[in-house]
Amino acid sequence: MYVVTSPLSDADLKTVGDALQGALVDLVDLSLVAKQVHWNVVGPRFRSVHLQLDEVVDTARLHSDTVAERASTLGVSPDGRSATVARSSGIAAAPDGWVKDVDAVQTLVDALGAVITRMRERVDGTGEADPVSQDIFIGITADLEKHHWMFQAENG
Amino acid sequence: MYVVTSPLSDADLKTVGDALQGALVDLVDLSLVAKQVHWNVVGPRFRSVHLQLDEVVDTARLHSDTVAERASTLGVSPDGRSATVARSSGIAAAPDGWVKDVDAVQTLVDALGAVITRMRERVDGTGEADPVSQDIFIGITADLEKHHWMFQAENG
Amino acid sequence: MYVVTSPLSDADLKTVGDALQGALVDLVDLSLVAKQVHWNVVGPRFRSVHLQLDEVVDTARLHSDTVAERASTLGVSPDGRSATVARSSGIAAAPDGWVKDVDAVQTLVDALGAVITRMRERVDGTGEADPVSQDIFIGITADLEKHHWMFQAENG
Amino acid sequence: MYVVTSPLSDADLKTVGDALQGALVDLVDLSLVAKQVHWNVVGPRFRSVHLQLDEVVDTARLHSDTVAERASTLGVSPDGRSATVARSSGIAAAPDGWVKDVDAVQTLVDALGAVITRMRERVDGTGEADPVSQDIFIGITADLEKHHWMFQAENG
Amino acid sequence: MYVVTSPLSDADLKTVGDALQGALVDLVDLSLVAKQVHWNVVGPRFRSVHLQLDEVVDTARLHSDTVAERASTLGVSPDGRSATVARSSGIAAAPDGWVKDVDAVQTLVDALGAVITRMRERVDGTGEADPVSQDIFIGITADLEKHHWMFQAENG
Amino acid sequence: MYVVTSPLSDADLKTVGDALQGALVDLVDLSLVAKQVHWNVVGPRFRSVHLQLDEVVDTARLHSDTVAERASTLGVSPDGRSATVARSSGIAAAPDGWVKDVDAVQTLVDALGAVITRMRERVDGTGEADPVSQDIFIGITADLEKHHWMFQAENG
Amino acid sequence: MYVVTSPLSDADLKTVGDALQGALVDLVDLSLVAKQVHWNVVGPRFRSVHLQLDEVVDTARLHSDTVAERASTLGVSPDGRSATVARSSGIAAAPDGWVKDVDAVQTLVDALGAVITRMRERVDGTGEADPVSQDIFIGITADLEKHHWMFQAENG
Amino acid sequence: MYVVTSPLSDADLKTVGDALQGALVDLVDLSLVAKQVHWNVVGPRFRSVHLQLDEVVDTARLHSDTVAERASTLGVSPDGRSATVARSSGIAAAPDGWVKDVDAVQTLVDALGAVITRMRERVDGTGEADPVSQDIFIGITADLEKHHWMFQAENG
Amino acid sequence: MYVVTSPLSDADLKTVGDALQGALVDLVDLSLVAKQVHWNVVGPRFRSVHLQLDEVVDTARLHSDTVAERASTLGVSPDGRSATVARSSGIAAAPDGWVKDVDAVQTLVDALGAVITRMRERVDGTGEADPVSQDIFIGITADLEKHHWMFQAENG
Amino acid sequence: MYVVTSPLSDADLKTVGDALQGALVDLVDLSLVAKQVHWNVVGPRFRSVHLQLDEVVDTARLHSDTVAERASTLGVSPDGRSATVARSSGIAAAPDGWVKDVDAVQTLVDALGAVITRMRERVDGTGEADPVSQDIFIGITADLEKHHWMFQAENG
Amino acid sequence: MYVVTSPLSDADLKTVGDALQGALVDLVDLSLVAKQVHWNVVGPRFRSVHLQLDEVVDTARLHSDTVAERASTLGVSPDGRSATVARSSGIAAAPDGWVKDVDAVQTLVDALGAVITRMRERVDGTGEADPVSQDIFIGITADLEKHHWMFQAENG
Amino acid sequence: MYVVTSPLSDADLKTVGDALQGALVDLVDLSLVAKQVHWNVVGPRFRSVHLQLDEVVDTARLHSDTVAERASTLGVSPDGRSATVARSSGIAAAPDGWVKDVDAVQTLVDALGAVITRMRERVDGTGEADPVSQDIFIGITADLEKHHWMFQAENG
Repeated sequence: MYVVTSPLSDADLKTVGDALQGALVDLVDLSLVAKQVHWNVVGPRFRSVHLQLDEVVDTARLHSDTVAERASTLGVSPDGRSATVARSSGIAAAPDGWVKDVDAVQTLVDALGAVITRMRERVDGTGEADPVSQDIFIGITADLEKHHWMFQAENG
Repeated sequence: MYVVTSPLSDADLKTVGDALQGALVDLVDLSLVAKQVHWNVVGPRFRSVHLQLDEVVDTARLHSDTVAERASTLGVSPDGRSATVARSSGIAAAPDGWVKDVDAVQTLVDALGAVITRMRERVDGTGEADPVSQDIFIGITADLEKHHWMFQAENG
Repeated sequence: MYVVTSPLSDADLKTVGDALQGALVDLVDLSLVAKQVHWNVVGPRFRSVHLQLDEVVDTARLHSDTVAERASTLGVSPDGRSATVARSSGIAAAPDGWVKDVDAVQTLVDALGAVITRMRERVDGTGEADPVSQDIFIGITADLEKHHWMFQAENG
Repeated sequence: MYVVTSPLSDADLKTVGDALQGALVDLVDLSLVAKQVHWNVVGPRFRSVHLQLDEVVDTARLHSDTVAERASTLGVSPDGRSATVARSSGIAAAPDGWVKDVDAVQTLVDALGAVITRMRERVDGTGEADPVSQDIFIGITADLEKHHWMFQAENG
Repeated sequence: MYVVTSPLSDADLKTVGDALQGALVDLVDLSLVAKQVHWNVVGPRFRSVHLQLDEVVDTARLHSDTVAERASTLGVSPDGRSATVARSSGIAAAPDGWVKDVDAVQTLVDALGAVITRMRERVDGTGEADPVSQDIFIGITADLEKHHWMFQAENG
Repeated sequence: MYVVTSPLSDADLKTVGDALQGALVDLVDLSLVAKQVHWNVVGPRFRSVHLQLDEVVDTARLHSDTVAERASTLGVSPDGRSATVARSSGIAAAPDGWVKDVDAVQTLVDALGAVITRMRERVDGTGEADPVSQDIFIGITADLEKHHWMFQAENG
Repeated sequence: MYVVTSPLSDADLKTVGDALQGALVDLVDLSLVAKQVHWNVVGPRFRSVHLQLDEVVDTARLHSDTVAERASTLGVSPDGRSATVARSSGIAAAPDGWVKDVDAVQTLVDALGAVITRMRERVDGTGEADPVSQDIFIGITADLEKHHWMFQAENG
Repeated sequence: MYVVTSPLSDADLKTVGDALQGALVDLVDLSLVAKQVHWNVVGPRFRSVHLQLDEVVDTARLHSDTVAERASTLGVSPDGRSATVARSSGIAAAPDGWVKDVDAVQTLVDALGAVITRMRERVDGTGEADPVSQDIFIGITADLEKHHWMFQAENG
Repeated sequence: MYVVTSPLSDADLKTVGDALQGALVDLVDLSLVAKQVHWNVVGPRFRSVHLQLDEVVDTARLHSDTVAERASTLGVSPDGRSATVARSSGIAAAPDGWVKDVDAVQTLVDALGAVITRMRERVDGTGEADPVSQDIFIGITADLEKHHWMFQAENG
Repeated sequence: MYVVTSPLSDADLKTVGDALQGALVDLVDLSLVAKQVHWNVVGPRFRSVHLQLDEVVDTARLHSDTVAERASTLGVSPDGRSATVARSSGIAAAPDGWVKDVDAVQTLVDALGAVITRMRERVDGTGEADPVSQDIFIGITADLEKHHWMFQAENG
Repeated sequence: MYVVTSPLSDADLKTVGDALQGALVDLVDLSLVAKQVHWNVVGPRFRSVHLQLDEVVDTARLHSDTVAERASTLGVSPDGRSATVARSSGIAAAPDGWVKDVDAVQTLVDALGAVITRMRERVDGTGEADPVSQDIFIGITADLEKHHWMFQAENG
Repeated sequence: MYVVTSPLSDADLKTVGDALQGALVDLVDLSLVAKQVHWNVVGPRFRSVHLQLDEVVDTARLHSDTVAERASTLGVSPDGRSATVARSSGIAAAPDGWVKDVDAVQTLVDALGAVITRMRERVDGTGEADPVSQDIFIGITADLEKHHWMFQAENG
């Protein structure tokens, strides 16, 4: 059976593995929510919001790959399947159907806010166990908070 | 309320809209399944399969965007949210945990086979209603069948 | 005298040649209308609409070249001269002078709508005579309808 | 109502605005004439002339955008619509139907010659009123005269 | 033994497989003929024809790969070996030794004409059996007919 | 001591050197003002204005380098230090704190307007003394006036 | 009124906000000082130092943007206006007029040294309050210290 | 009649011309064999071998062009037509139908080995007659032997 | 004599300097070991492992440069000479002669494992003394652990 | 006989043609002098001066092409043959043999100075006759004077 | 005084140095002759010959740099000044004034032929003395002979 | 056991294999020496020498890969491990600690000189046994001698 020699103790591995799995689910769902709004937004700011959302998708896809491969690196099998995402994501379901641009922006403000709160807990919770994973969470938080600012400024 | 002037009759729109929504869900799930295996594959063919899977992800992401925007173009709101995908995808759930390379290849053979069968039905079912959408389904089928061959040849 | 060996019968050639010439005029005029509005739009959405219009110009120029060269390929001399375009385009004249952004968007919705209607007739009318030309019209229709959606969504 | 604060006096603005509008029409028509011949040329020099014409198209499209946006910059609404171009261009109508390569070259020699004569008058007429616009006309003249040489040398 | 699960019935597979094998041989031979003339052409149009021929080579190589891999995708082993090509190509043998430019152009007009005739039969013969393969043949025909026009125009 | 052999007389050098130094200060300050608003803008047009401002920054940085190096070329030491810029810029101080998008646009309209007025005086004042420097000022004016139009059109 | 939901407590926000504002001013001034010397350096090492200084400018501009946007992200309005920079920068004023290459290098050694000292204090002072901002300061310090080494080595 | 002024004596020209013609045939056939296996390989190493084969194709195509144009340069008409290749290639016919990956590798080991043996004879046989052609054969041999090593190592 | 003004105390400098020198030696040796196996690997996975090893070489070369220049930055002369590397590397000598692919993978698993263990000690040991250097070690560890996972998965 | 229709009067053509021919010879010789020193420079600044000289070569080659083609454009046959350049260049012969770096820099200061003086006379002498050619001379002078500054600053 | 430690004996150095100096002069003059004809060619093949000549210029410039730097490498000061080129080139003077395309091609056939004859003598004469320089001459000969073929084929 | 079918006799293989192994060790050590000085150089020419050294590193790394893979190609296992390099390199150990720029240049002059002497012996010793390997040594010698010249010229 396949076992990775992990550089972490079992307790640390549990802590970090849970954080990575949680981040994976949040980021995959963020990419799906942002795409959903990307396709359904309408209103005078359509083009601007439509393009801005794809930048969130790029960020979310890039970082979901990073955290999933970090989990594999530590010997923890990552789970990013649709049922898992649907069940355990920290983001509220995106609205059904067409979305007015002002609501589209608010949906992203809320989704990003929910993920950031959980990501900052991961930053706080993993520094002792694995500074390498913590550094990854810090970088992700920086990117998400920048997107969060931009969507807040849009509705400012 | 936002209403797109559709170039199709209501009946045709229903036919084509259902086909596009079905394709969207299949393709989003295919991208998630391929990523799942990309992260969890182990064995002597790890690197080769790992890279091959990301080409499936690229294909699935590209075409999921195309069909979703085609739906919007016709005035049908597309739904690619995680719960919708988990509930209505045509692909069997990917296996849990690490996957041996030979099983990884078979997982993709099966997933691609399932999507191709449904996609060919969409090709057959939409030619009358909307040749533009049919042409998109034909192009997607060509790409998926090529991936299907390559994974079959891997286990040949 | 220069005569191309056409793969089509005379009747089919007439059908397809007329369709290609009609498409050429529509697409050249679409590029001129989009540029006209690109230069004259004013209002809070100026930059967004200004940029979006140049994407229509790129599409129209690319496809006008394709249909003109397809006509030459079949042995039908294409005519894209300014007087011909002014006389036979399917698009209503663009408004004179500065254009408010909301009107700019509507101008494009109308222009694209007019061209799409005629282009779909070309799709329907050429499949028997020349599936190669039909395939070109299908591809053009897909692109134009996508632009059409985006401008409708802008005013949604 | 939209009014640009122009850096020019009314008289200067009239002079420069007329010159820019004239240049716009000439350049748009030059791009259409060059494309027309690009599609219709035949003869042993087909490929060479076909490619050379697209370089004229690139030049004409680039500069038509520059002069139209310069007009907008000064607060003069530019008019590049097909009917306006057909009515007021300084270029004689391109020939109908297929064009032998030697005639194709001569058509461009004549068209470029006509535009250059008018463009040099714009250089002379705008230096006092607006050296910025004059500098644009000088640059356009340089490019057009270089094309003019090349087509003359082709038939030399 | 290696068996691909084909999405086609046996009869359809026979039809489509024969068409793909025929197209493969024609396209490989077209690439060899075009290279042969590329190396042997002489005369005042040497450079122009020499370059133009390499564009035919690029087209032929690209599409030969597409049809061969489409055959493999359907479970039909493609055969592009030199003896098979020499035996079953639809193109007459290219002339021996140096070729005057006017004859070089005519050689390509003839070779392209021969391949196009057969390719249009493949378009007609495969639409029922496999619209995906038909779509590939349509795209190939479009490219070959464009090259055909250009060589005819060269000698026009 | 370092002395450049200047191609200009002392009087001309004084005229041109003052103009270049003035332009340098204006352009450095324009880059700082545009960045300031780039960071502080809020409102529905946030993204559009945010991006547009960085294009002004690029223009201002590029041209500030050009005029500073032109001064060095003529043997006049350029001064672009923060205190010099703060003291002698022709632009009114940018507002403190967050800026609503409509005010952001107006800030740029005003800043660009102020710099353009002074730049046109430099065009008028240096043609006799140094046509090379004048040509640089003409090019800068063209770029600034184009930005000016775009921001005016935004608030049009 | 525009209020960003900050992930930090008020006290932490004050600490981090002050650090970011201080870093912004230092980095903007560093970019101006490096440009000033870039334009005014003379001596046998002119070209080498001239080019090296533009790499400092690139670093300073890149990081000034990062810290300003980080401030906005946290809800603190950044201030990078020329008067603010002139008043609160941690860098001594660059020398007036031409600068010998050896002095140019020393000017940068001093300027970088001053900014690094303050930046290391920001690293120490923000780890508790906001590890994300601290991580940004660490990255900036790494880059500045590398430049510092290179200028010291130049005069070594 | 077209006669190139050859820099070689008739005897040397005969020697070198024969060597170049032989190399041309071998390299064209190598490209066809490698493509044949590229399309027909199956087994766990499918993807790896499939990709590796296309690198052989690139090498063979590049060098076949070089030797054919070298022949033309010396005034010897090159012959790369399919019948000539089928008749005079130094490579044994590739196997019919699907090929297991281990056999695919061996097929290339054999094909490369056959061509290398003949190419080394060309290196030995042309140094006196034409060092320029010899240098080309040396370069080709280096590339082919590198591929040869890689396929041998695959089956090592 | 050349002395860098270090931002660290003597004790901290000793700690960090030793860590950087150790990392330098490990990384240079890792690049040499990976190249050694890159050249000597044989077996069915040859191509895959051969390519994967060059990615380790790239990582090792990139980071060896980073740590050496970080040492110079802090005023500690780095030593990456062959004798120093041979004497003090933390990696066991690579095997002599040809290496079967399975052993090649294991060689890398072991080499990466050895370097990672030491690198994590450097992460732990330098955080107090110099967070900038620690951040560099964290980044290196992340990259090495990812390679480690991939080679473990290969033999999984 | 080949005659270009010149847009200039005979007198103006003589003035401008002489200026262009003079500029051509100066620029070709400048490129040869700069290459000569590029190859022969020695001393501690070797690399810096060696690279800087190639930038002068690029400038000189680019502008020699521009002025020669401008002459052809006006119907004046340009003469850039080696004997003409050797006989009529405005630059003193470059020194024979190896050149110390300080002398290399001075050689360029002198050569650029000589060309600039003559180029400024061309700017003054052609504005009436042909503002298009004058504009070209102005652009060339700007580039040459910038190089002149840099070489003066090198020896400053 | 600057003396390079040459790897060659004095006699070999004399042989090789003379060959390199001769090649330098021929190649510089070839670049000037090709440019001269590039600017002066007229006739129906103008564009084709005009472009082809610039490829000769690129080849000649590239190789003139190579041989000059090879001379410097061996410790022989290269001389590529205009007077030296005019005096010692192996190419007959290019014709004065406009050149018909057929004559332009012949001019290049002759010029290339003259340089090739001398270059082959250099290949023969330097193999004993310095195989490194000989290899450079072989490479240059290959490129020049390829151009020679193409111009001969043009007039074939 | 893995045995490559070598195209060389045993005696020739011994000769060539030894030469390749020697070249490998020299080139790997050259890359380490050049990096060592790259990190440790100080003085007014720091930047220039620092950059120049990385070009030597690039050359040495590129060619070390070429000779190692050439050895594998011939069936000789290459050995580039750190202990082997430390023991058998032809380069004297680089100095310890910081290096003044003038000494840095001399270190490279000496190191390159040592490698070149040995490389020329390899050129002389392998021509009979294997012209392909000899050609590789000739190319390496050309590159190394060019670097040698540049460093000698630096200290000239």
